[in-house]
Formats: sequence, C-alpha cells, structure tokens
Amino acid sequence: MLKKIVIAPDSFKGTMSSHDICNIVERGIRGVFPHMEIIKLPIADGGEGTVDSFIQGAGGEKIKVIVKGPHFDEIDSFYGMLPDSETAVIEIAAACGLPLTKGNNNPMITTSYGAGQLISHALDRGLRKFIIGLGGSGTNDGGIGLAAALGVKFTNSSGKEVPLNGKGLGEIEHIDLSRLDRRIKDCKFLAACDVDNPLHGINGAAHVFAPQKGAGPEMVEVLDKNLIHYGHMIKKYLSKDVAPIKGAGAAGGLGAGLMAFFDAELKSGINLILETVDFGNIIKDCSLIITGEGKIDGQSLRGKVVLGVASYAQKEKIPVIAIVGDIGDDMEEVYKRGVTSVFSINRLAIPFEEARLRSRDDLEKTVDGIMRFAKIFNSTGRGQ
Amino acid sequence: MLKKIVIAPDSFKGTMSSHDICNIVERGIRGVFPHMEIIKLPIADGGEGTVDSFIQGAGGEKIKVIVKGPHFDEIDSFYGMLPDSETAVIEIAAACGLPLTKGNNNPMITTSYGAGQLISHALDRGLRKFIIGLGGSGTNDGGIGLAAALGVKFTNSSGKEVPLNGKGLGEIEHIDLSRLDRRIKDCKFLAACDVDNPLHGINGAAHVFAPQKGAGPEMVEVLDKNLIHYGHMIKKYLSKDVAPIKGAGAAGGLGAGLMAFFDAELKSGINLILETVDFGNIIKDCSLIITGEGKIDGQSLRGKVVLGVASYAQKEKIPVIAIVGDIGDDMEEVYKRGVTSVFSINRLAIPFEEARLRSRDDLEKTVDGIMRFAKIFNSTGRGQ
Repeated sequence: MLKKIVIAPDSFKGTMSSHDICNIVERGIRGVFPHMEIIKLPIADGGEGTVDSFIQGAGGEKIKVIVKGPHFDEIDSFYGMLPDSETAVIEIAAACGLPLTKGNNNPMITTSYGAGQLISHALDRGLRKFIIGLGGSGTNDGGIGLAAALGVKFTNSSGKEVPLNGKGLGEIEHIDLSRLDRRIKDCKFLAACDVDNPLHGINGAAHVFAPQKGAGPEMVEVLDKNLIHYGHMIKKYLSKDVAPIKGAGAAGGLGAGLMAFFDAELKSGINLILETVDFGNIIKDCSLIITGEGKIDGQSLRGKVVLGVASYAQKEKIPVIAIVGDIGDDMEEVYKRGVTSVFSINRLAIPFEEARLRSRDDLEKTVDGIMRFAKIFNSTGRGQ
Repeated sequence: MLKKIVIAPDSFKGTMSSHDICNIVERGIRGVFPHMEIIKLPIADGGEGTVDSFIQGAGGEKIKVIVKGPHFDEIDSFYGMLPDSETAVIEIAAACGLPLTKGNNNPMITTSYGAGQLISHALDRGLRKFIIGLGGSGTNDGGIGLAAALGVKFTNSSGKEVPLNGKGLGEIEHIDLSRLDRRIKDCKFLAACDVDNPLHGINGAAHVFAPQKGAGPEMVEVLDKNLIHYGHMIKKYLSKDVAPIKGAGAAGGLGAGLMAFFDAELKSGINLILETVDFGNIIKDCSLIITGEGKIDGQSLRGKVVLGVASYAQKEKIPVIAIVGDIGDDMEEVYKRGVTSVFSINRLAIPFEEARLRSRDDLEKTVDGIMRFAKIFNSTGRGQ
C-alpha cells in the first residue's frame, strides 16, 4: 500500500534539473493518487543547485551576497545558511561557475576569489561549518583566489602578489599564511567532491577538466606545469603533500587548495547531502522512494545518487524505484545495493537527440504508468 | 497480491512472435516469482500461428496434410481440430502463404487451391465448423482456387476451366456450383479478418495488398480489372453482391470467395479467438493479465489484441498491463477501454533498427522490472 512517497532524484544531465524532475514526478503521482503524501528532495551533489537542495532538505535560508566573479567583475551570488545557525552551504559554481564567465571561458585568467568572499561573509554571520560544493567551476586557479580572499598571500620572486588565476600559480615563489583569517582555525570544512582526480598529471585538473573550460592543448600544458609548481610550493610552505590526493584536482585544483589551507575533508556529495538533511529520518515512515538519474549502469556504478539514496532505503527496508533515461545491461549490482526496480522513460525507439526533446512528457507518463500499475495493489487506503 | 498471471500478447511484428513473447514474459516473471501460476496464450489473429494459438487456448490437435502449394507444387500443410470434434481451424497462410512462394512471388499465378484441400480433409474427418484465418496469403485469386478444390467450376468462353489464379479470374465466363461438395451446406464458416478492404478499386485487394505480394504497378491494374470482372460473375451466377463488403478484399479477394460460395461470416480475428477459447473463463481467477504488441496508439486504436483482451478483462475487473515496443501519445482511450497501464520495452534512447536487435532481452528485463516493483506489494502469499 502506498501512503507516502519521497522523491529524491539527481538531474538528468542536459535535459532536466533535479528540481524539475521532482515536480514532474509529483504531477505523475497526483494524476493517479491525488491525495498521496509526497516529499520532494531534489538532489544536487556539489554543482549548481546544491544550496537549494540542502535548504529544501534541511531548511534554512539563502543569503545573497555581491562578490567578485570569475573575471573579477561584481556579480550577485549567494550561499545557504542551515537552521543550525552554524553551517554554511556554498556552491562554488555560484561564485566562479563556468556560465558566469559569460562566453569568455579562459581558465588561465579566471579566479575563485568570490568563493572566498562567500566564506568570509558567512564567517561574519558567525557560521563555522562549511559545506562546499565543488562542481561546475570555470577556473583552474588551484583555489588561490579563494584562499587570498581569506588572507593568504601568494607572491612572486620580486615579492609582488601574483595574479589569482591559473597563470599566477606558475609565478608563486612564496606563500604567507600570517594574515589568514583567524576565525578559520575554529572552522570545519567539508567539500562535496565526486571526482578522484589528483592535482596534476594526465588525470589532473588541467588535462581532464581545463579543455571543457576553454583551454586548448597548449594552455593545458602550461596549466598543468603551473599546478605542478603550485604543488611544490604548498609542500615547501605548508609541509603538506596534497597534490596526489584523490580530489585534489577537483574544481581546477580548488580541492588541493581547500585541503592545504583549510584542512578540508573531501566527501562524496551524495553522502554529504543525505547525512546533512538526515535522509534516514525523512524516509522513515514512507512507503516508496522514487529516485533517478540520466543513466544507470551496473558495471561503472554510475548512478551515485541512486545508489546513495538506496543505501539509506536498504537500512530502513523501504522500496526504491529508479526512473532513468537509459538503463545499462547489468543491473544485478544495483539491485543488490538496495534498488527495488528500474524504469526507463523511453517510450519510443528513437535516438537521444529526439528523445531529449520529449523527456519531460515521457517522464510524467512513465510515472503515471507506474502509479496506475501500483493502484492495482492500492485498492484501499489513504493513497487513493 | 499476484497469484496467477495470464500472458496473452500479439506478436511484435518483425521482431518477436507471440509464442516467443509468451515464453520471454514467463521467464521475466519466474525470475522474481519462481512459483507464480502462469497461463500462456499467444494470440495470432488470422495469420501465421493462428492454428497453434487456438490449440494452445482451446486444446485440440494439429492435423498434418499434404496439399498443393501456391505454385501447385506439393507441400506439407496442416490445420487444427478443436476438442469439440466439430471445429477446424485453418490458416490459409499454411497453404498459400507468401513465404511458401519461395521467392517466386507472383500473385498473377499463385493459387489458394491448397486451402480448399485442407477444408476437404477436415470434412472427411467429420468437421463442420470452420474458422479460417485470412492473414499472410501470397495470392490474389479471389479464392477460386479454394472454391475449385471443393467442386466449384470456373470456365471460360470456350467452356474450358480457367487457371485457378489471379490471371484466371479475368477469364471466367461461367461459374458452375452443381458439383460443390454437398457437405458444405451443413457447415458454418467464420473467417478471421482484420482488414476492411473491398474486393476491388483503390482500396481493394490488388491495389492495397498485391504490391507486397510481388505485383508491379501494371500487374496491379490487371489484377484489379480481373477482380472487377470476378465480382460481376459472382453477381451474375450467385446473385450476390459481395465486392463492396468490408473484408471482401482480404487475402487477395479470398474474403469475397468465402462469402460468395460458403456464406462465410467475417469476424475480427481477436474476438474470434477469444470467444473460441472462452477467454473469459481462462482469466476468471487470475490476478493480472499481461498483453502487448509492437505499438499501441490511442488515436488510431492500433492495438486490436490489447483492446480485445482488455475488453474481457474489464468485464471480470481484472487488471491488464500492456507491454509494447512504442507507446503513442494519447493513451486515455486505451485506459478507458480496460487497460490498467502500459509499459515500453525501450531501455535505451536508440533508433528502432538498433532496438529491435535487443528486443528479446529488453522485453525480459522490462518484465523483470515490473515484477520487482510488484513484489513490493506481494510480500506474502503464494506468488513468492
């Protein structure tokens, strides 16, 4: 018997946001069960939408701040303050996201400075715990912009401050922590990070992510060289070897910067949000969880959101269905990890380029079909 | 609670037979509910597989007979004898089907003679009720081959018997019923026919069906002219105007011949089989019916098998799910007519040419997914 349904999907990359999906799935349910109790938790695990996602799940408010954008221009930005009045949720995409470069994508010159200003604003508000979503940046500055906004000084061989961007990384000869904001030592930093990339090298930030931020092959080489140098400087002045750590290369090396200057702990985005919003408690008395993402695949274990949600559901013995764009061939592992069943939204045998244009409608009708089927078993009770 | 499931699908044209689909759906169910009671009724509504379909549903046996094929060669054929020892089920495709022309498709020269021999054999066995499936013929002989095998004589202006094919139709100047098998008058003929085409004209047998049987544009014109002439001859010698009747053009005009010489009644194939096998009784105590076909569409009401099955289910208030290749946009009418829910087997956004190659696997996994979902509600009881 279905009484209460929790909707907790990832986005379908390139077609629908997790927020959209929540609303569409809700409509699909209401068409069959108008009075169903429904809780919506759009999942964003580090990138754009992360602040909204935490606030929707945990409560709290969105604080608007003007900061410097990726090109040192002034932009409207924000962060989230959770109801514990202690925790700030920051998505770096809101300060230095690729869309904020407004077509002038150039990871050699863009900065994460504004993200540091968000932290500073939150410190002024008394917040001391920081959840930082590392997705969607348009920068490759190793986080020196962010660190500089909080008082770290990066100078070149002439003692002059270096540019706070991918180019400046290569010029650093001295790092001075003496003016780092003193409140930082009372803070805890958690970074939501779902990539394993080290700071530099063939799997590093420059080689893997800079091309999609606008770098050509030559720029990638320079950025990588600069990141290597940056790693050495961190080692020299902070006695920390962060470069090889998994996730150091996240957000253009901002992962490394957060670890070096703020002792940040890198955690999987989906676990961080589910922990923070106390997902186990949200689902406690629900009869079904609907999650989903663009593609699920048993072998690569793509589908971190689905599996994260399922791990909580498994503990509470609550059924989980995943509604996805494409279903890979091997679902056994997915079932083992707590997913009850997987449905595709594809209703016609047509290629993705066509299917994506009708994905919203396909999703709603797929949910409608599943709910119509569920109604067979739901012939009495509150859901109807 | 699922206890007993009836599987009654159409074929997915060009990819899977209804027999295959029954077995695949059964496997999909057994993977989740190993002990589920399952009844399989592959639906074939007139074409190839019709005899098997009736025997599987109603019981009876398959009688093997050697008859003349479409090119007057000897072929192995068969018909079905139902357990009432009165009813023969004949699929004309087994005597003059397109595949039996073995690449020499030519509706000008092919004959339905063998189908008449099947009837004759069944008469010898004492059978007096005939269900004749009109799908899949490779002929355009107006049924004169079939009629001649049972004693009707078609002669030309010189009193010579005409060739029993599409060409011969044009030469008929006299029809002699005096030697028609006398047992025919005690018989009842029902033809399973799902097309509305009249005998001739732009919607007639030649124009609509002869091209797929190998006729070029000129041959179509000749065949159509011959069918017009045939219609006149029937009117002249039998005082019946069958040419404009819906279905007269089925099976290369065999519909007209059956009505003219055997007073056959044309009925929808799906209703004929569901009546004959007493489908209402088969589903009486089942908890779910799974049907399906290649494409379902609310507007054209394609999906005769699904809707036929659903109409029985609606009377008994039994839920029906349709598992299909493609789902059209407007399903409201389909739901109104007794279908509970519709699921597509498409698991990837890929075009049909690719999807068809994986359709068996996709079907099984789709059923598996639906059953896994159903299991949520089936946590106790016999099905598990």
